[in-house]
Amino acid sequence: MCRVLLYRRMTSENTHVVMINGEAADCISSTDRGLLYGDGVFETLVVEQGVPRFWQRHMTRLRAGCRRLAITGVDTGTLYEEAGVLLAGHERCVLKIVITRGMGGRGYATRGCGQPTRILQRHAAPGYPDTYRHEGVRVRLCQSRLSHNPRLAGIKHLNRLEQVLARSEWDDPDIQEGLVCDVDGRLVEGTMSNVFLLAKGTLLTPELSRCGVAGIMRSVVMELAGQQGLSVQSMTISADDLGQADEVFLTNSVIGIWPVRRIDAGDYPVGPVTRQLQVALDGLADEGTEWISDENTGLAE
Amino acid sequence: MCRVLLYRRMTSENTHVVMINGEAADCISSTDRGLLYGDGVFETLVVEQGVPRFWQRHMTRLRAGCRRLAITGVDTGTLYEEAGVLLAGHERCVLKIVITRGMGGRGYATRGCGQPTRILQRHAAPGYPDTYRHEGVRVRLCQSRLSHNPRLAGIKHLNRLEQVLARSEWDDPDIQEGLVCDVDGRLVEGTMSNVFLLAKGTLLTPELSRCGVAGIMRSVVMELAGQQGLSVQSMTISADDLGQADEVFLTNSVIGIWPVRRIDAGDYPVGPVTRQLQVALDGLADEGTEWISDENTGLAE
Repeated sequence: MCRVLLYRRMTSENTHVVMINGEAADCISSTDRGLLYGDGVFETLVVEQGVPRFWQRHMTRLRAGCRRLAITGVDTGTLYEEAGVLLAGHERCVLKIVITRGMGGRGYATRGCGQPTRILQRHAAPGYPDTYRHEGVRVRLCQSRLSHNPRLAGIKHLNRLEQVLARSEWDDPDIQEGLVCDVDGRLVEGTMSNVFLLAKGTLLTPELSRCGVAGIMRSVVMELAGQQGLSVQSMTISADDLGQADEVFLTNSVIGIWPVRRIDAGDYPVGPVTRQLQVALDGLADEGTEWISDENTGLAE
Repeated sequence: MCRVLLYRRMTSENTHVVMINGEAADCISSTDRGLLYGDGVFETLVVEQGVPRFWQRHMTRLRAGCRRLAITGVDTGTLYEEAGVLLAGHERCVLKIVITRGMGGRGYATRGCGQPTRILQRHAAPGYPDTYRHEGVRVRLCQSRLSHNPRLAGIKHLNRLEQVLARSEWDDPDIQEGLVCDVDGRLVEGTMSNVFLLAKGTLLTPELSRCGVAGIMRSVVMELAGQQGLSVQSMTISADDLGQADEVFLTNSVIGIWPVRRIDAGDYPVGPVTRQLQVALDGLADEGTEWISDENTGLAE
């Protein structure tokens, strides 16, 4: 099998190239439990200068997710090797890794499941306008609520209907993200990002013990902020607290840090702390991929 | 394309035959949103004398699920036609139908998604011992909790990690099912079934406005019970109420009605009401597939 001749699929939306279980292919069995039950986890990494950023941190979260779901037999060394093949010659792109429990019989019991399925997709780098990063983005507060399940909180599993429902609340291309609260009205995250607030000089981000995804960029920014001498707290935050914030920004691995300039009718400045953290994050980019304590995802296991 | 030459896959656990979007195949793209986000719904139907039981009822729930998720373009007439091809010559088996939102780009937004993916799988009829049905089954009370999301409650969507986690709590083959409560400790359902209690002469089953699956057999049994002159209520039930019950039984489309003979350390008789409903359900089987008001799934939309 020629591992370099990778399966390429084109849709109206995007071009991607796929490797499944080490082979160039884009074919998943309809009995894969990833499809039938969302029984798996995923990671989305940005690739810069040919290197997936924060690889170790992503793999730590991936392993934590597999442990929570009792998915065994995932070797991150193999993923690294396969990512190397998939990314060869591609300086700037997005790498998505999906791990499922693999194929099984009909029914929820995991007995008799085979090996986990590993899917690596190479996507084009996203074409977000520079204005998002420089001038900030417009955000809405979603009506959808996130349910509480501590056993699934933090990990990036494949049960993402709540995010799909929240994201489907708007179709206005001028709104770049939606913030979502939990069933008790606490602020949790964006549909595809984590959220930070600056309030009274302290950087706050929602704690994620009951729901939400413990983002890799969230953990990087929390650590960077600490290095910059900022006070950082992961805590309970209400949607009302947004109105009192001096600065608000979003993070994820692909976007880095996006300042928020508006939430519904409320305007926010792109403030000095947000700028300082953007500069600090850019500084990291000059030093390689594994800059700071790369193992710390801030994710309870 | 020869539509009769269907793709057959064998695993150590089961043999199944698959049709995807009307073609004999077992290949799902890794960008299918069913895989990436659990963005879809499914139905499991028992096939007897070559006919899928309660077809209309299953299709009503499937359509309700698609409406909740805003998945459009699913034609149940096409599913019926394809099921006819897949089931030809098979008197007794299980038909699983999965509908996903189809392929899309990277990200939760549904804009640009193609047509829904329709997957029909034919599985062998399950080989449950007759004792389950006659003498009852042993059940445990799970530690796992079901989270609250009214927008997803009732429908049979593909985000089933909570069921996978609950089912993974035991590996004892002498225990056939686990009962699961919600985050507030209310009884909801079994991992793969609905549950009924007989208490003070009234048949009770948990209401499902915040979580749980509105089972097709649940709706059939509720209707049958009414026809039999029994008082039936869908209501809030606590796990403690199980201890006060005179009879307990489980329902799903494949098992029909299973009496519960033990929950953890508590024994239950296989009582007269359970028997009466089993007989009534068997009576239905003699009259065709669409016996009683086939549209009523009891599912709020």
